Amino acid sequence: MTISEPLLHINETRFREDFERLTRDGATKDGGLNRPALSEAHLSARETFRNMICERGFEIHEDGAGNLSARNFSPEHAQPVILLGSHLDSVADGGRFDGTLGIASAFEVIQILRVHYPQASMEVIDFTDEEGTWISLLGSRAASGQLTLQDLNNPRGNPEAFQKALKRADLTNEGILSATRHSKTLRAYLELHIEQGTRLEQSKTDIGIVTGMVGIYMYLVTFRGQSNHAGTTPMNERQDAALGASEFCLRVQKTVSEKYPDCVATVGHMDFSPGAFNIIAGRVTVFMELRSENPQRAEMLQEDLHQKAQSAANTFGLELDFQFLEAVPAQKMDPSIINIFESSSEKLGITFKHLPSLAGHDAQSMSLLSPSGLIFVPSVGGYSHSSREFTPWEACVKGANVLLNTAKRLAASLS
Amino acid sequence: MTISEPLLHINETRFREDFERLTRDGATKDGGLNRPALSEAHLSARETFRNMICERGFEIHEDGAGNLSARNFSPEHAQPVILLGSHLDSVADGGRFDGTLGIASAFEVIQILRVHYPQASMEVIDFTDEEGTWISLLGSRAASGQLTLQDLNNPRGNPEAFQKALKRADLTNEGILSATRHSKTLRAYLELHIEQGTRLEQSKTDIGIVTGMVGIYMYLVTFRGQSNHAGTTPMNERQDAALGASEFCLRVQKTVSEKYPDCVATVGHMDFSPGAFNIIAGRVTVFMELRSENPQRAEMLQEDLHQKAQSAANTFGLELDFQFLEAVPAQKMDPSIINIFESSSEKLGITFKHLPSLAGHDAQSMSLLSPSGLIFVPSVGGYSHSSREFTPWEACVKGANVLLNTAKRLAASLS
Repeated sequence: MTISEPLLHINETRFREDFERLTRDGATKDGGLNRPALSEAHLSARETFRNMICERGFEIHEDGAGNLSARNFSPEHAQPVILLGSHLDSVADGGRFDGTLGIASAFEVIQILRVHYPQASMEVIDFTDEEGTWISLLGSRAASGQLTLQDLNNPRGNPEAFQKALKRADLTNEGILSATRHSKTLRAYLELHIEQGTRLEQSKTDIGIVTGMVGIYMYLVTFRGQSNHAGTTPMNERQDAALGASEFCLRVQKTVSEKYPDCVATVGHMDFSPGAFNIIAGRVTVFMELRSENPQRAEMLQEDLHQKAQSAANTFGLELDFQFLEAVPAQKMDPSIINIFESSSEKLGITFKHLPSLAGHDAQSMSLLSPSGLIFVPSVGGYSHSSREFTPWEACVKGANVLLNTAKRLAASLS
Repeated sequence: MTISEPLLHINETRFREDFERLTRDGATKDGGLNRPALSEAHLSARETFRNMICERGFEIHEDGAGNLSARNFSPEHAQPVILLGSHLDSVADGGRFDGTLGIASAFEVIQILRVHYPQASMEVIDFTDEEGTWISLLGSRAASGQLTLQDLNNPRGNPEAFQKALKRADLTNEGILSATRHSKTLRAYLELHIEQGTRLEQSKTDIGIVTGMVGIYMYLVTFRGQSNHAGTTPMNERQDAALGASEFCLRVQKTVSEKYPDCVATVGHMDFSPGAFNIIAGRVTVFMELRSENPQRAEMLQEDLHQKAQSAANTFGLELDFQFLEAVPAQKMDPSIINIFESSSEKLGITFKHLPSLAGHDAQSMSLLSPSGLIFVPSVGGYSHSSREFTPWEACVKGANVLLNTAKRLAASLS
């Protein structure tokens, strides 16, 4: 962007009205949104978006995974597309900003840009099931060719319910697997999302420019002792798996808090066997995940926690099975797009900082297919997946203007 | 028992053969027994016992709760009955001695005594579902009038499966509730059981004379925090219910081990909500029970653990709900029967000690109806509810001889 290029600004009123309209379906009494993927409320929100696309004179496109797009392609359609997107689905009893703000801002951006760059091919895409009601990042993983039939056969919940939900949305396994796009057809993927944390708020920064997604590493840590009678087994003769699991859970929190400020780790579940008042637990499996932007640090932390687990097992006379389950690898965002986010922010007088994303986003899938960029706007109090989720409107406008001028720079480079 | 009364001794060979015969149905490859109440294997064992009762010329009696008896009633049947008993059912994959040894020794006792005291009314009873496959102490609680229709409508497992099992054994709810016996018809209830612990083994004592059953107190201890995103919520901003529950679990073990040698306490289960890898637990409910012979000590321990739970909740910024769920009150065994157990042991040159029972037994139900007494024989290694359950045969014989001479004294007093 040379000094002579004029900055563009979004239409604040239209942006606000569109956001309000897109957050009506599935609105809850407490000010949140309840739009699990493929639910009636979610499909209603898509219908609303479809009407808006039509009213504003964009081309409607829907792929086999249900991803719904507004397109403004150049007459020749010879050039790669600038794709902007996010998602209209929410977690159960989630908030209004997560996903929907990204759709509203992207939709506002292409309305401005088609006036200035009518020859640039642009598209706003609403991805299916970002939140993983059934399969995390379903739509963007399908579009980037990462979804398999095996994934579709192993949804959260039960496969029958998933197939029923697909049917309600006129989707099929075959259709989903056919939604793959080709790398050469895309110039870039851009997304705006709420931070879902307090790093921006605490540093009083307007925009977070995401450098990459943390890797997510999942483990099943099993402590085995001796299932025994809770009355007749003396306290000092027990091999109680609950004690090893509890000790480990506390160690996870302490280790990460004290030694790994760049990581998080969570014990979200424990499975007790046999799991009764009157029987000493013979086996407890701890569901643990850790997240880090840096694979080396993740590995260090894993080794550290493995040792802590072994020490907890030894303390209580237990056997340990420390099982690595699966990883969602860390992803880097595109450096050239990061640069454009920076210069756009600077020119707009908007403060920014670089940060890793601690959650998964569609930009993560899309980065495997196309140069991708993601920016965050602040989440007040860090509330996320909750009706308390909130971002002040002026902060949303700042984010949308950074998104607009970044997309503009890409459109200009194609012109 | 005056000095001139001769001691009786059981027939060791017959006792051994009967025990072996009664442990054939449901025998497992590893030397245990698998006879959950009302299973085919359990009903086969009852059929075997029924045949033995018939062969030895006793009267067969079966009540509405399925309790199966061998009776030798005096011709006039004017006098109260000396009842001896235990149970033929086992836990899933249990051991050979738990319950069945009590039936075999009681059956041996009345075979000896009917020769010497033909005019005494005696009965050996095999109680239904002592182990609580469906309802703990079902048969003895029915006989002692403590079972309600509400209990029958809330079995472990599901009510349909329970009703199906009852049908297989030709039992009905109405029949079970009609099995109540009357206090005045009973002189005493006597039972021999394995200890299921190591107190006798460690003190090298032949017989444990049970002074009473511990009370069992059950609690649901719930820690409430804030369910939140496991990636975007910084470690120091979490209200993680898993941490409070884990801290409490460790404190329970430490507190009881260090300060309450007369009690035991167990965390047998924890229920996590929502319970996923990627969500910080917003609520964890800890299933805890404690056991003590002394209600005052149980209350002290409860207060101590309540404070520990509150302290764990405070440490991690959580709310606490410390809910008392239910109690099985402590029961005293009859002092006069304890005296007869003592004098019988002394005369036989068998060592004994007084101890509380840390598990529930049919003698606990029966003590509400009749003077009751319970003795333990040693469990090698304390193994219980396991194929490793074992008591040396000479120890079983010693126990049966104490049971015999105690019942003899009661029979003599009726003659």
